[in-house]
Amino acid sequence: MSSLSDATREKFKSISTATVATCLFKKGLKNQFIQGVKPLQKGRPNMVGEAFTLRYIPAREDLNPITVFKDKNHPQRVAVEQCPEGSVMVIDSRKDARAASAGSILVTRLMVRGSAGIVTDGGFRDSAEIAALDFSSYHHTPSAPTNLTLHQALDINVPIGCGDVAVFPGDVILGDDDGVMVIPAHLADEVAEECTEMTLFENFVLEQVQNGKSIVGLYPLTDEKIRSEFGVWKEGK
Amino acid sequence: MSSLSDATREKFKSISTATVATCLFKKGLKNQFIQGVKPLQKGRPNMVGEAFTLRYIPAREDLNPITVFKDKNHPQRVAVEQCPEGSVMVIDSRKDARAASAGSILVTRLMVRGSAGIVTDGGFRDSAEIAALDFSSYHHTPSAPTNLTLHQALDINVPIGCGDVAVFPGDVILGDDDGVMVIPAHLADEVAEECTEMTLFENFVLEQVQNGKSIVGLYPLTDEKIRSEFGVWKEGK
Amino acid sequence: MSSLSDATREKFKSISTATVATCLFKKGLKNQFIQGVKPLQKGRPNMVGEAFTLRYIPAREDLNPITVFKDKNHPQRVAVEQCPEGSVMVIDSRKDARAASAGSILVTRLMVRGSAGIVTDGGFRDSAEIAALDFSSYHHTPSAPTNLTLHQALDINVPIGCGDVAVFPGDVILGDDDGVMVIPAHLADEVAEECTEMTLFENFVLEQVQNGKSIVGLYPLTDEKIRSEFGVWKEGK
Amino acid sequence: MSSLSDATREKFKSISTATVATCLFKKGLKNQFIQGVKPLQKGRPNMVGEAFTLRYIPAREDLNPITVFKDKNHPQRVAVEQCPEGSVMVIDSRKDARAASAGSILVTRLMVRGSAGIVTDGGFRDSAEIAALDFSSYHHTPSAPTNLTLHQALDINVPIGCGDVAVFPGDVILGDDDGVMVIPAHLADEVAEECTEMTLFENFVLEQVQNGKSIVGLYPLTDEKIRSEFGVWKEGK
Amino acid sequence: MSSLSDATREKFKSISTATVATCLFKKGLKNQFIQGVKPLQKGRPNMVGEAFTLRYIPAREDLNPITVFKDKNHPQRVAVEQCPEGSVMVIDSRKDARAASAGSILVTRLMVRGSAGIVTDGGFRDSAEIAALDFSSYHHTPSAPTNLTLHQALDINVPIGCGDVAVFPGDVILGDDDGVMVIPAHLADEVAEECTEMTLFENFVLEQVQNGKSIVGLYPLTDEKIRSEFGVWKEGK
Amino acid sequence: MSSLSDATREKFKSISTATVATCLFKKGLKNQFIQGVKPLQKGRPNMVGEAFTLRYIPAREDLNPITVFKDKNHPQRVAVEQCPEGSVMVIDSRKDARAASAGSILVTRLMVRGSAGIVTDGGFRDSAEIAALDFSSYHHTPSAPTNLTLHQALDINVPIGCGDVAVFPGDVILGDDDGVMVIPAHLADEVAEECTEMTLFENFVLEQVQNGKSIVGLYPLTDEKIRSEFGVWKEGK
Repeated sequence: MSSLSDATREKFKSISTATVATCLFKKGLKNQFIQGVKPLQKGRPNMVGEAFTLRYIPAREDLNPITVFKDKNHPQRVAVEQCPEGSVMVIDSRKDARAASAGSILVTRLMVRGSAGIVTDGGFRDSAEIAALDFSSYHHTPSAPTNLTLHQALDINVPIGCGDVAVFPGDVILGDDDGVMVIPAHLADEVAEECTEMTLFENFVLEQVQNGKSIVGLYPLTDEKIRSEFGVWKEGK
Repeated sequence: MSSLSDATREKFKSISTATVATCLFKKGLKNQFIQGVKPLQKGRPNMVGEAFTLRYIPAREDLNPITVFKDKNHPQRVAVEQCPEGSVMVIDSRKDARAASAGSILVTRLMVRGSAGIVTDGGFRDSAEIAALDFSSYHHTPSAPTNLTLHQALDINVPIGCGDVAVFPGDVILGDDDGVMVIPAHLADEVAEECTEMTLFENFVLEQVQNGKSIVGLYPLTDEKIRSEFGVWKEGK
Repeated sequence: MSSLSDATREKFKSISTATVATCLFKKGLKNQFIQGVKPLQKGRPNMVGEAFTLRYIPAREDLNPITVFKDKNHPQRVAVEQCPEGSVMVIDSRKDARAASAGSILVTRLMVRGSAGIVTDGGFRDSAEIAALDFSSYHHTPSAPTNLTLHQALDINVPIGCGDVAVFPGDVILGDDDGVMVIPAHLADEVAEECTEMTLFENFVLEQVQNGKSIVGLYPLTDEKIRSEFGVWKEGK
Repeated sequence: MSSLSDATREKFKSISTATVATCLFKKGLKNQFIQGVKPLQKGRPNMVGEAFTLRYIPAREDLNPITVFKDKNHPQRVAVEQCPEGSVMVIDSRKDARAASAGSILVTRLMVRGSAGIVTDGGFRDSAEIAALDFSSYHHTPSAPTNLTLHQALDINVPIGCGDVAVFPGDVILGDDDGVMVIPAHLADEVAEECTEMTLFENFVLEQVQNGKSIVGLYPLTDEKIRSEFGVWKEGK
Repeated sequence: MSSLSDATREKFKSISTATVATCLFKKGLKNQFIQGVKPLQKGRPNMVGEAFTLRYIPAREDLNPITVFKDKNHPQRVAVEQCPEGSVMVIDSRKDARAASAGSILVTRLMVRGSAGIVTDGGFRDSAEIAALDFSSYHHTPSAPTNLTLHQALDINVPIGCGDVAVFPGDVILGDDDGVMVIPAHLADEVAEECTEMTLFENFVLEQVQNGKSIVGLYPLTDEKIRSEFGVWKEGK
Repeated sequence: MSSLSDATREKFKSISTATVATCLFKKGLKNQFIQGVKPLQKGRPNMVGEAFTLRYIPAREDLNPITVFKDKNHPQRVAVEQCPEGSVMVIDSRKDARAASAGSILVTRLMVRGSAGIVTDGGFRDSAEIAALDFSSYHHTPSAPTNLTLHQALDINVPIGCGDVAVFPGDVILGDDDGVMVIPAHLADEVAEECTEMTLFENFVLEQVQNGKSIVGLYPLTDEKIRSEFGVWKEGK
């Protein structure tokens, strides 16, 4: 059973990672932005889903010949077949993009299975093919070498680090063009709710600024007159 | 009063950062290219303007709650409202893009106020929105977290470092797709003049090379015959 | 005389760097992907050619005034005029992109002379112009400063390091959107042959996955039924 | 007038940076340890003093010839002559140790004038001579080049960043073999007081552990029996 | 039951990490040296023991208040009390030394409990105290902040990465002044045996070289005359 | 024939790298300090000698099995046997210390042959043994893995980069506890001469400062009274 309700998932589709970052900052969580990753394709809809994690450790040569994938239980392949619909696969590649975390075949399989996206703090191979999919993907930089070169897939769905952020299975993962935020599962509904309000206000502010208004008193909102204008504006939406 | 004349500003619009870098190299200034920044949108017209600087220091938690922006005198907000028309805001973010230097609302406000562009050696949030503006912006990488997470805005229009380059208020800032050059104020007219000449010659060279000429004797110009051809070509322009 | 046959060159045009990386991994060569470089323009046809190398060392100021280029024997200029048709120029810039490795004039000259592409583990200036050429180019990041600022061209066509990979003159250089692989000259035919087969199979797999097939038994191919399906599919091509 | 009382200064002489770090962590200040610096000489008494700051920006060649030091008002030299007795000079070298922040002559002068120590997030030249002084000094790594190579001294006693930490003039600087902590001025007395208590307890714990006691219930102190033993032990001191 | 026999443990006490590295290189294992760590105290006897691992992930603020240590089941404290006699605790700190991995109290407890040493790819606090113990310890650099600042202890004795090397529980950990090697458990006896031989030969070579012999024919041993001299020398030992 | 006269060599033995750095800075050479290296043993006499260089490129696995050293012509071994008496071997290890540049046997051989020292921008294995020799050695950090893991020795005595500095065979290499300076061969006599004067003056300054004199007017020397005192002091030496 998913802890991410449809309503909350829907809200996150219209909320930016920047807004969520500010919301979590106010709650004392200042380190939820995955550092060093970017979307393979810009301008896509938000990526929203629960974290399904995969942990890599450094590869030892004798344990990682090309033949390991013949093992039906190889964690990387198992993870791809188990990642629940609507989830985001998040891979702990130890910020090492010198070899790939995965390639287009596995990412396509994830897409077909209904995953909501994939994030690695390493890199993907076949990056052009992955970027062309109707699927959200985030990495550090393209990387042609097979993952066996430097990574051994070890654990499925355990707490990991990704881009210097703690990711627990079930955390809500939100991605846009700025990058990826990790929202602790127990805060997801609350954050979605608050951020919807914040987004409304930010839209108002942006409209005012585009119309030539100063940010003084407006952003943040300290001027009472503007506050009532916002009230009216909000009504109109 | 601006030290950047309209004529010089106009000239810089047709000069590349590469040409300026070579010109300053000849004058003994070898470290005027802001390292580690790139345009949020490629293919825009050159960014040209005088530097208006903003200095950040690392954020101490007790001094940087979300409420600080309620202070009308917060340096970041004051800077945005004071940056003169035609100037480029240059932010010293200590090359730390783990939190944002600013977001789309402030950048939009700068644009509306007539600023010529913005540069940080950190990162911007709302990067897709900023990239979509008709406004030049340069950073290291997108970054969703609010600036309060890691940065405290401190000083307005003091000499700073940005991307390992010294930036003095009033220096001329030139940006194209390669990145951003800092031209000392007192050299601006002279550099614009010399680079206009250099650009003319480079255009000639490029045309020759496209037509199959060897670079020997042409680039640099050591062949007398080619020199006179250049003379003729130049006349023709 | 070129060691890269037309047939092999042709094959590499349809093979990805990822496939080559896996092929070389199987042969015990795990470090042939040039780290830290990317194409200036995405979506181009593969870059294929033999390596023609250029070695830079750090620039000493007294040896690198702007006037050095007046010397017809300056190694950078000589290299550009000597790089054989169909070859890829590979520059050892010591992974230092703080100054340019070359600019649009030299790269255009290379293109006109029939070179197959250019790679540096530093950066190019005039990057927008280079990206607009019908020519493959790879670097770390744009960089406006003239190469004399930090680099002194020293040797032509000696073994070098580029992006932490050994590059010997004559090695086959293959580039796509993931980046650049270095294929030892003596393995080029064999790798092209094997990778053509691998690519065929990967195309089959991708088609199956797009059609909803699980990767179990398919990738890698351990299921006998799928194996015979592949046989049939292959016949059909 | 100094805000650091003699009593508090004295207390800090027996408190470790680790203890202070934990104390500040409890108060919500998690980023007060200057990253990347180490003592030039290990095993010295604690360094304790108020911060007197010096800000460097990147050096522009024309502003930093060797002759600048002939100016009696050069900020680096002025700072050395103005740094109050008992203060610690803290230099913002932008974490760049490729050129020196200062050398043995200036550091010796600081020592003779009664300064309590010096910290840079860059490097010192004449490091062997500085290490031999009866004076506390911290840097990243030795560096022979004169500071003019990369640094221009600009501001005296303004808020700075040093090793990714905000340092305000008057903050208390504490150094031991682990490195350097920055204690906000207004918290100095309180932190010194609390840490004195914490240190007492840690000494008790260490003694117990050395005698073979388990840390369970002891560290942290959750066992009531041990709590009363600590009470007795404390009495005995 | 330990898989590291007393005989093998004893042999490793006279074998250097360099010799082991060469031995493993010959067996195709080229990535067993933990990168980026050094001993807190030089000149100690070799550290030898089986790996007992501890995995950290990035700390999330709400899960890591100072009070967590009151939990008797906190993995860091449990690990210290469970680490078997003769084992080496190896901590995966994700190469992040900005906060401590542990401090002198826990390390002292480990020592008293008979552990053979401790390794982290992060840093220790109380580094002077730890260095003064009769106990082997390796880290990247001292770090005063409590581990809660950046690390959350999560798993005990699972496979981890440490300094870019895979470490499996039970692997043999060997440390000397060069750093730390990880020897796969199943190879320990064989490596100890071969390295004892190699060490004998290296001692002979060093003696010859100190006496003025050329390395030609001697190192490696290709000269038959020297081979028989080595035979005689070996007899004499 | 050596270009480094006995007289000049002798002078450099009493000159610091810091003084040389300032002297070369005045001559426009600002990048002659090898970045990122330190002595394996502090407190040794200055290292002085002409550069004898060795160039490494990245190792390709098939070209670098352990057996390559059986080849009497392997460049690393040849270099050790050819390095002239009184010279300093300088190795271009591409700033990569993840594998060793050399170990104690080769370094001992160099010492016995009369070399003046060794520098690598990588690391040495057997670092404790090397540090114990009566021989100057500089590296980045200890590294146990054999050089074959990452390095292939290629060229002897060609111009190289080492720690971001150009090193030409015959340049004078000067090392002290701050690190290593590279003095262009044609400037060696002149630099030694000027630095001897500068050192005399610095000694005078240091004596004055130790005696409580202000640096104003003294350092640099702008006060005429102090100038004449220096004259007298100098006479006395």
